[in-house]
Parts: sequence; structure tokens; C-alpha cells
Amino acid sequence: MTGTLVLLRHGESTWNQLNLFTGWHDVPLSDKGTVEAAAAGRTMADTGLRFDVAHTSVLTRAVVTCNLALAEMDQVWLPVQRHWRLNERHYGALQGLDKLATAARHGDEQTHLWRRSYDVPPPPVGSDSPEHPLNDPRYRLLPPDVLPASECLADVVRRVLPYWHDTVAPQLLAGWDVLVTAHGNSLRALVMHLEGVSTTDIAELNIPTGVPRRYSFDAHLGVVDAQYLGDQEAIAAAAAAVAAQSKG
Amino acid sequence: MTGTLVLLRHGESTWNQLNLFTGWHDVPLSDKGTVEAAAAGRTMADTGLRFDVAHTSVLTRAVVTCNLALAEMDQVWLPVQRHWRLNERHYGALQGLDKLATAARHGDEQTHLWRRSYDVPPPPVGSDSPEHPLNDPRYRLLPPDVLPASECLADVVRRVLPYWHDTVAPQLLAGWDVLVTAHGNSLRALVMHLEGVSTTDIAELNIPTGVPRRYSFDAHLGVVDAQYLGDQEAIAAAAAAVAAQSKG
Repeated sequence: MTGTLVLLRHGESTWNQLNLFTGWHDVPLSDKGTVEAAAAGRTMADTGLRFDVAHTSVLTRAVVTCNLALAEMDQVWLPVQRHWRLNERHYGALQGLDKLATAARHGDEQTHLWRRSYDVPPPPVGSDSPEHPLNDPRYRLLPPDVLPASECLADVVRRVLPYWHDTVAPQLLAGWDVLVTAHGNSLRALVMHLEGVSTTDIAELNIPTGVPRRYSFDAHLGVVDAQYLGDQEAIAAAAAAVAAQSKG
Repeated sequence: MTGTLVLLRHGESTWNQLNLFTGWHDVPLSDKGTVEAAAAGRTMADTGLRFDVAHTSVLTRAVVTCNLALAEMDQVWLPVQRHWRLNERHYGALQGLDKLATAARHGDEQTHLWRRSYDVPPPPVGSDSPEHPLNDPRYRLLPPDVLPASECLADVVRRVLPYWHDTVAPQLLAGWDVLVTAHGNSLRALVMHLEGVSTTDIAELNIPTGVPRRYSFDAHLGVVDAQYLGDQEAIAAAAAAVAAQSKG
């Protein structure tokens, strides 16, 4: 039988809290994010979920969310695969900027385009910027031409899907139950693929932090059921909060 | 250039604290063990160590020690491979028994033989015992004939070395710096191999919890230098404490 998939967006980070564009910049969870991560683990345990393998990005906020959630499930020993293809969208020259200040400076329309358009990337960072992954030792074993200086959602889809097809999907087809802990945009890319969301409709799809989304599949990995786990009212409020982070 | 290896025994567990035989029984770190794990990470960071990959057993006390140490090094995103071959020695029917009570019941000589002889395994657990790895879902994908019901140190050497030869050694030869977080006996097995300790002398070799042991190698993985990192007096005291855990 095809395995169950849970997608989990990391808990609030210190830069989510400050309302800064984060992208590949590596920041820790906030205290609230730590609580969210553990709560996600308890929700999954209460639902009777047990995983066979977990995947995260190579960014601390996703790695730690995964660790904390698995600790609540008494599965901290689970094999975890950490991969750059699950990273957040690289926000280019916007990384470290305030979302509202960016909207004030560049206009709501341009900022909304950078945040929510499918195929307009923000301005790139230079290859000598500390925000360029060329200058982060964790990516030193990757060919430089896969390392982004800025990404739109279409770019994220292109780099996430090979990991889905080559690594996650075969595990599900082998009957494993799989947890993927990642980021707002790498998860939106996966949700687009799994649920057939259009490049237009994805603009309005917001994934709340710390709320597990569970998928059941048929034998061909077609989605049979998809739902957020936990208190449904709280989940809707969390998604609305993400949408409200910029006026754009 | 051949990479640097650090061996790290997990911090004190709740069963170390209670002086019980633990083996493959999965117990968390004690509060002291948590402190030891973080301190090991700080020692490694202060020494200027940075790792390319980490390995742990699939037992929570080693996994969490690794996580806590890497957090202190700001390397929580590092790829970590968790493998049963790095597990503690399976202590068979002794798992869960008090070390001093066992010595009182079976005699100091027999208990010392079980604890420190090279090739005398403790009595095995039955295949229906909760202490048998057949009944732990984390081992369900392994062929039953590799799952031990009890192990002597010679058994541990036989199952640890394939992981060393196939996985860890090639990474060191590729120039990677490698952290292995494991257990008293799986690390004694590695130290025997690395340092050419005899099956007799290994009986007196005790590895302190939470003290990183760093190895430098020549091009053929011959040991050029091996030393414990940190305060040398405290390290000697910790090793003596391990030796004193039973009168035998």
C-alpha cells in the first residue's frame, strides 16, 4: 500500500517574527516556533502517525522543527535526509529586508509580484555576497551552476521536483510513511504538483507554520485525501496571518 | 588530505545514572548527559573543528548527543547518517538489570566476564522479548539474522567494522572531517581497530562520556595522532568513573 505523506512548514523563525525576507539565510526558530514544532509532533502522534523516514532542507529552522516534532513522537532516531532542494526560495537581494519597508520603497505592486508571482524573481545577489550560496560551506560540494542568486516560484518547482521524483515518491510507492519538513515556498511547489494547483491559483495558497498536512495516495500516487491536522479554526487563522504579512 | 575523525561517546543516559545495563534499550539522556553533549560541542567548536558529515547509532542517546553537539557548533544542518551498526553492544538478558545487583547475584567474576571479556556474550533474550530487536519497528527493514539477542565485544567488532570500511573510511579518504557519536562498546570496537589495541588490553580501555577523541591520519588511514579534547584531568576522572561502575 502506498505510504502516507505529511508536509510540515517549519515553526516561526526569528526573521518571520521580525517580518524580514529570509530565503536561504539561516536563522533559528523563535520561541514561538519551538513551541509550534513540538505541538506539530504531538498532533501527529495523537493522530496515530508513525514515520519510516523524514526529509528536511539544510536550513536550521526546518532541521530543528523536524528534530523537535520527532522528539514528541519518540522517533528522534528516524533516518532523516537533509537536502538543499527542499530549501526555501532564494529571495535574492531581498534577503534581510523588511517586508513592509520593501513594499513602501518599491511599491505594493512590485513587492506583491516578487512575493506572489509565479515567474518574476527578485533582483539577484552578487556572487561575492554573503547571501550567495557560493559563500556558504554547506553547499561547497554542489556544482556552482545549481546554486541560485535569486529564485521565483517556478525556479523552486524546477529544483524541488527532482527530489520528489527521485527520492520521496519512490519511498511512498514502497509503502513508507514519510515526513517532509520544509518551507513556505518549497512546500507550495510540492502542493502545486500534488494537488494540480494552477500557476495563477498558487498565489493565494498560504501554508501555515507548524501545521502538518497529511496526504493519502492511490497506487499511482494520485492524491486520495489531503487535510491539515489539528484544530481547524486555528489553522485558518494561521494561514490568514501569513497572507497579511505584506499589504501587497 | 585525509580528513579528521572525532569519536564521541554519548552523554550520560538515565540508565547510566541508575547503573543499569542498557545495551539496545532506548533511553534518553539524563540532565547531566544533556549538559555533557552541549559541552562536547563547545569543546569541538573551540578547537576549530568543523565537520562535513556525522554518523550516529539509531539509539536516542547518541542521536540527541549528536544534535546537541552540532547545535553548539552551528552545524545542525549537517548530513547525519544513523545506522544500527553503531549501536551499543546488545546486553542480552542483562538489559535493564542493575550492575551491582548482577555482580552480587552472579558473582564478581562472572559479571566482570560479561562486562569486559572479549568473547563471552551475556545470556541471550528470547525472540519474543521486548528487548529483542525483532520487536522494535526501527529494525523492521533488516534481515532477522543480523539482529542480535546478545553480543560480546567480538560480535560488536564484527558488525561495526563493515560500517567503518564501507562508509566512514571512504569519507575520511575523500578528505571529509567526520564525527561519529556512538556508545561505550561500539567506540571501543573502533578504537581497537584504529589503535591496534589487543583483545586483552581492550578490557582496561574505558571511554569517558561526552569527551571528543580526535584522530589525524596519514594518506593510508594510519593514525598519526589521537587525543581527547578538553581538560585532561577531568577526562582522566571521567574514565575512572566508568571503570568503577561495577566492583568486577
